[in-house]
Amino acid sequence: MLSPLIQELVDALRTLPGVGPKSAQRMAFFVLTQAQEKGHYLGHILQKAIRQVKTCQRCRMLCETDVCSICKHVQRDKSIVCVVESPANVIAIENAGMYQGLYFVLSGHLSPIDGIGPEEIGIEQFIQRIEDEEVREVVLALSATVEGEATAYYLVELIKKRGLKATRIAHGIPLGGELEYVDEGTLAKALLDRTNI
Amino acid sequence: MLSPLIQELVDALRTLPGVGPKSAQRMAFFVLTQAQEKGHYLGHILQKAIRQVKTCQRCRMLCETDVCSICKHVQRDKSIVCVVESPANVIAIENAGMYQGLYFVLSGHLSPIDGIGPEEIGIEQFIQRIEDEEVREVVLALSATVEGEATAYYLVELIKKRGLKATRIAHGIPLGGELEYVDEGTLAKALLDRTNI
Ligand SMILES: [Zn+2]
Ligand SMILES: [Zn+2]
Repeated sequence: MLSPLIQELVDALRTLPGVGPKSAQRMAFFVLTQAQEKGHYLGHILQKAIRQVKTCQRCRMLCETDVCSICKHVQRDKSIVCVVESPANVIAIENAGMYQGLYFVLSGHLSPIDGIGPEEIGIEQFIQRIEDEEVREVVLALSATVEGEATAYYLVELIKKRGLKATRIAHGIPLGGELEYVDEGTLAKALLDRTNI
Repeated sequence: MLSPLIQELVDALRTLPGVGPKSAQRMAFFVLTQAQEKGHYLGHILQKAIRQVKTCQRCRMLCETDVCSICKHVQRDKSIVCVVESPANVIAIENAGMYQGLYFVLSGHLSPIDGIGPEEIGIEQFIQRIEDEEVREVVLALSATVEGEATAYYLVELIKKRGLKATRIAHGIPLGGELEYVDEGTLAKALLDRTNI
């Protein structure tokens, strides 16, 4: 029904996460009829960004320079490194506005079942990083999943072996979250990790 | 927080309908980390499609040829023309698989308040079309909104003045729709348009 080129565009739009056949068609018609100029610019910037964006040599955050702006920032505390699983997690923590240290971005988490070991996610570079630098503390901010926990466990060994302090972000009830709407796993974790008041 | 080029990509992705800041960021990170090749291809096809896709000279459907495949199809009934408000509506009717006539695609509907008159939506070309061709019947398949109804009313005058038959698609309860879940307007319309059994 769709002409071949429009069908190709619809199929290509489905590359994007969260885009199904209906919304891909809606997007295609929209750029073809109402946003030709902006759509053309999107095509240009997609190609340019994919060509030029690389990972920071120190923390593996996405950026278009050799070292990212966080690693270059003179006022960040270079003695603390927060380990996350993705660039999006760096942005989330930065948006929270409370953290002044540096980062190290893994490529996801360990998953032996899928053949994803320490090398695949960048743990060798992480070891170099904590050995080379004036790092004193490593904050683990990994997913609260089985794989995330396994990865954290693996990293804690490496960190402690080098005499560094390992911490991890707290899991628990979200602020403003009502108890009855929190899932059981989170509630169990929050009870286990209860703190003195 | 995001490097300038990544921020530009996030902003450009928000051009797409239904894409807010969170999903734009998710899309950007996804193409930059997990789908560079497919993302690059999407950029290419976006630009190519916007450059090459035009509107069919006969029905104004989007296609990359002068006349679209529906208009060119020898077995379609050239005596019936269905008027719709967008290319997406043509696809919806084609998917329903019951219609064998041709189409005419308006650019939306009349909206005098926004300065959108007959010329802006292609009604001049529609008049030429019904005068030039062997058209006997025009099926109106416009939105069931105030503007859609006003546009239909305007077209019916033009069609009848030329001695052609004007029909419109039925509005009513969707198949399988339970009465209590159908909105009042639709229910009222269904009662008004009741048919003999
Ligand atoms: Zn960095
Ligand atoms: Zn056509």
